[in-house]
Amino acid sequence: MPIDSVVIQMPEIEKFFLLNLDKKGTEPLYQQFFNGLQQMILEGRLAPNSRLPANRTLAHNLKLSRNTVACALQQLVAEGYLVTRQGDGTYVTSEMPNRRSNTGITEGANSKSYASRENPIPQYGLSRRVRDAVAVSWPSEAGTGAFSLGPDIGAFPFKLWSRGLARAWRRPKHELALSNEIGGYPLLKMAIAEYLAAVRKVDCQPDQIIVVSSAEQAIRVTSQVLLDHGDQVIVEEPGYRGNSGVLTSAGLRVSLAPVDEEGLDIKAGEARAPLAKMVCVTPSHQFPLGIDMSLNRRIALMEWANRRKAWILEDDYDSEYRYTGRPLASMQSIDSTGRVIYVGDYSKVLFPGLRLGYVVVPPGLVDPFLTTVQALGDQAAMTAQPVLAQFIADGHFATHVWRMRRLYAARQEALVEIAKRELDGLVRINRDGAGMHVIAWAGAGSKRPMDDEALAQAALHSGILTLPLSSLYVGRANQQGLILGYAAHNEEAIATAVKNLARLIKTGS
Amino acid sequence: MPIDSVVIQMPEIEKFFLLNLDKKGTEPLYQQFFNGLQQMILEGRLAPNSRLPANRTLAHNLKLSRNTVACALQQLVAEGYLVTRQGDGTYVTSEMPNRRSNTGITEGANSKSYASRENPIPQYGLSRRVRDAVAVSWPSEAGTGAFSLGPDIGAFPFKLWSRGLARAWRRPKHELALSNEIGGYPLLKMAIAEYLAAVRKVDCQPDQIIVVSSAEQAIRVTSQVLLDHGDQVIVEEPGYRGNSGVLTSAGLRVSLAPVDEEGLDIKAGEARAPLAKMVCVTPSHQFPLGIDMSLNRRIALMEWANRRKAWILEDDYDSEYRYTGRPLASMQSIDSTGRVIYVGDYSKVLFPGLRLGYVVVPPGLVDPFLTTVQALGDQAAMTAQPVLAQFIADGHFATHVWRMRRLYAARQEALVEIAKRELDGLVRINRDGAGMHVIAWAGAGSKRPMDDEALAQAALHSGILTLPLSSLYVGRANQQGLILGYAAHNEEAIATAVKNLARLIKTGS
Repeated sequence: MPIDSVVIQMPEIEKFFLLNLDKKGTEPLYQQFFNGLQQMILEGRLAPNSRLPANRTLAHNLKLSRNTVACALQQLVAEGYLVTRQGDGTYVTSEMPNRRSNTGITEGANSKSYASRENPIPQYGLSRRVRDAVAVSWPSEAGTGAFSLGPDIGAFPFKLWSRGLARAWRRPKHELALSNEIGGYPLLKMAIAEYLAAVRKVDCQPDQIIVVSSAEQAIRVTSQVLLDHGDQVIVEEPGYRGNSGVLTSAGLRVSLAPVDEEGLDIKAGEARAPLAKMVCVTPSHQFPLGIDMSLNRRIALMEWANRRKAWILEDDYDSEYRYTGRPLASMQSIDSTGRVIYVGDYSKVLFPGLRLGYVVVPPGLVDPFLTTVQALGDQAAMTAQPVLAQFIADGHFATHVWRMRRLYAARQEALVEIAKRELDGLVRINRDGAGMHVIAWAGAGSKRPMDDEALAQAALHSGILTLPLSSLYVGRANQQGLILGYAAHNEEAIATAVKNLARLIKTGS
Repeated sequence: MPIDSVVIQMPEIEKFFLLNLDKKGTEPLYQQFFNGLQQMILEGRLAPNSRLPANRTLAHNLKLSRNTVACALQQLVAEGYLVTRQGDGTYVTSEMPNRRSNTGITEGANSKSYASRENPIPQYGLSRRVRDAVAVSWPSEAGTGAFSLGPDIGAFPFKLWSRGLARAWRRPKHELALSNEIGGYPLLKMAIAEYLAAVRKVDCQPDQIIVVSSAEQAIRVTSQVLLDHGDQVIVEEPGYRGNSGVLTSAGLRVSLAPVDEEGLDIKAGEARAPLAKMVCVTPSHQFPLGIDMSLNRRIALMEWANRRKAWILEDDYDSEYRYTGRPLASMQSIDSTGRVIYVGDYSKVLFPGLRLGYVVVPPGLVDPFLTTVQALGDQAAMTAQPVLAQFIADGHFATHVWRMRRLYAARQEALVEIAKRELDGLVRINRDGAGMHVIAWAGAGSKRPMDDEALAQAALHSGILTLPLSSLYVGRANQQGLILGYAAHNEEAIATAVKNLARLIKTGS
């Protein structure tokens, strides 16, 4: 083998002349140089592992200051396009940054991941931020069998609902047809405010409510109004990864705070992200662990927000379904300084196709939120808003939640009992006083620790849908388990699925 | 006056020790230093006009490399937080960057601008990107009098529509209630594809269509899928400023390409933004000038996109209302390389509260778009989708458009005639073969050039809603005029408004 075949290839300096730097342009040279190199790397014109010429060579040949060259390269290193090797110069990375395939989230059950689909498109056609967002996105929930998450849509009173739709739109009020109420239909905002005050002690006027189409949209808009590109935000570990995707795509840097038996630990979060400007948290029923955040932790969180002038995004996603005991009041209700953004979502309670939720913002943020929603064309569709308003005002919402609470509680009870019988010792499922899912942990009688990813994959092949707990960690999962949704499945379906799961675990296949 | 009261204040170096740099953290020091300084400036801890210590002083005291310091400062200068004065060091800017109050867009009629409302909130609470987006956002269209833009909602067949809603939701199909069709309701996508093929020669399969809630959302999602923070995008000057707000908030840098009598000039655009990765364009009926882009310009645009591997976002916002002649086919129909993203919006054609539109993407981009829409929780609400599908499939859409075309054509004719009579010589209004608005230009008999902003403001006081053409320029407007929407106003309302406008112009007040 000739010796120069192992020599690292170095691109000719001529390559860089194609950068087309415009020294009289309004764009800073540093930015032009950065963009140009980034593009060369993405398009493969600078090969992976190739070594860049020395800074002074680049500066001299391209007639740039060494400062400009150094700054651009430093940023490319920070973003993962280049790597420096001590005493050996700067290299193009061997793999594209931010693919995050090592998290395992894009693999396995997530058949929607673009990487695994047909119609590949050239690298340069896709933004890095989408690759980031996809990497932390929610595994596909396409299936509807046990134990998929979500509500029982068969139990929803659609007949009543459809009559409401017809009534609202036969001769629609002007503001409905025109959609000029940016923050949502006024009667809906009134109904939500009354309900929240009664049930969640949320203290707000109707005009503090902004109707949105999903919790994700709430987080997206909040990120736009309050944070800037590159700002840090803290999320729960483990937690709902869909939120992280939204935050990443909004240009935010996501840091993790561990969740223990008291809930999110803001002290640990702050140690990792001292400049964080927001935390996204599920204090009433942590997803997925189901923990109610302790009062001490809530106070520590509030103190952190006040001290750092940071924001608390309280995602109260599961507040409606509580079977035993009383939850602590919302964080919003103990917020005297206007630092809490409270988010709720009706799609999980009623039916997913609804796509209506809301944000409750402090009085001083109402106008910035409205302005932003309008500027970004982000108003929720009007069609279902008057119907939901009437549904709440007429008491149908309370009735439906009450009925579902009994139904879901019975289903959880059935799941726990059947599992105890069929999976005794192998798997342990604790009752949960709230929510729409439980977690199956490795039982005392199991011989080895659970490999939840492998088990979920095997279950999928047997037609059982579960979510491995470790897929909800960004870092190393320190515990494993299977997340089992029960709300949408009757006892028969639950019994069948548990038996199949038992066979799978016992035969080890 | 003691002499040191005119000396520029320089912050003590101790101030910078509060930056809390974490040298062992994962975040690059350069980024930490940048973020910290930025925050100090935003919070006023570094006063406007104060001079920063020399780079070497900062580097020495904070134990940072001079490179790190220089890079961070350079970026702060690029973003407008700091200014350098030749031979005199670096200063904190005297005003916050990107307020853009000099464009005039946030002033005047836009009473929704947060700056003018109650409940001011502290500067640090609002992101810069929102201030950017708001600065280029669309002036409020709250009013419904002549000459507001938009369709005539009184003419929409709501009775038929409400029956469709009731029918679709009485016993909804599973996929409707579950909303698990990320790209939209399949029957709606089929109906749209057929319509577009017949009317706009758009060449696509139903699965290339992604249903969204607005053109703004289409642009937002496209920006996420295809472009990264800091990428350049070209928009029309003059043009629909709402799009610029969406692009800015997506972290893109917006450059302007002038529109002349042939439409957008991509050559001029490329000269200003050589690295641009996308252009947003309204080729069939440029907004607001109403120009059909010439074939030469279309070819030049296509060539640019192919050469630069850039994207063309074709906003076909006004395609339904064409009164004379035949438009050129869509850009999408001449795109053989998959570079055109075609956007349509039903809210402008039917009624604004509907909030349904669509994007047509090249086959290779279908999966990236679906993945992104899912990851960002950005699906359009399902409620109205089956109704619109049936409305199109049953021919009601075509009937409605045909009826409105006659109605709107008559209204435009009335406006032009009344204006000729009442405003002869003072104002000139040309007929437009398409769309829902015309432009009133200064007439040959007017003594001085039109001040469209002042005229629009005076008109507003007399209850007449118009949009000054110059508010649709980001740079200096090289022509002035008033944009008059006529579609939503009957002849009587138009006649009254024209007479009031005439009195205003004649009395000069």
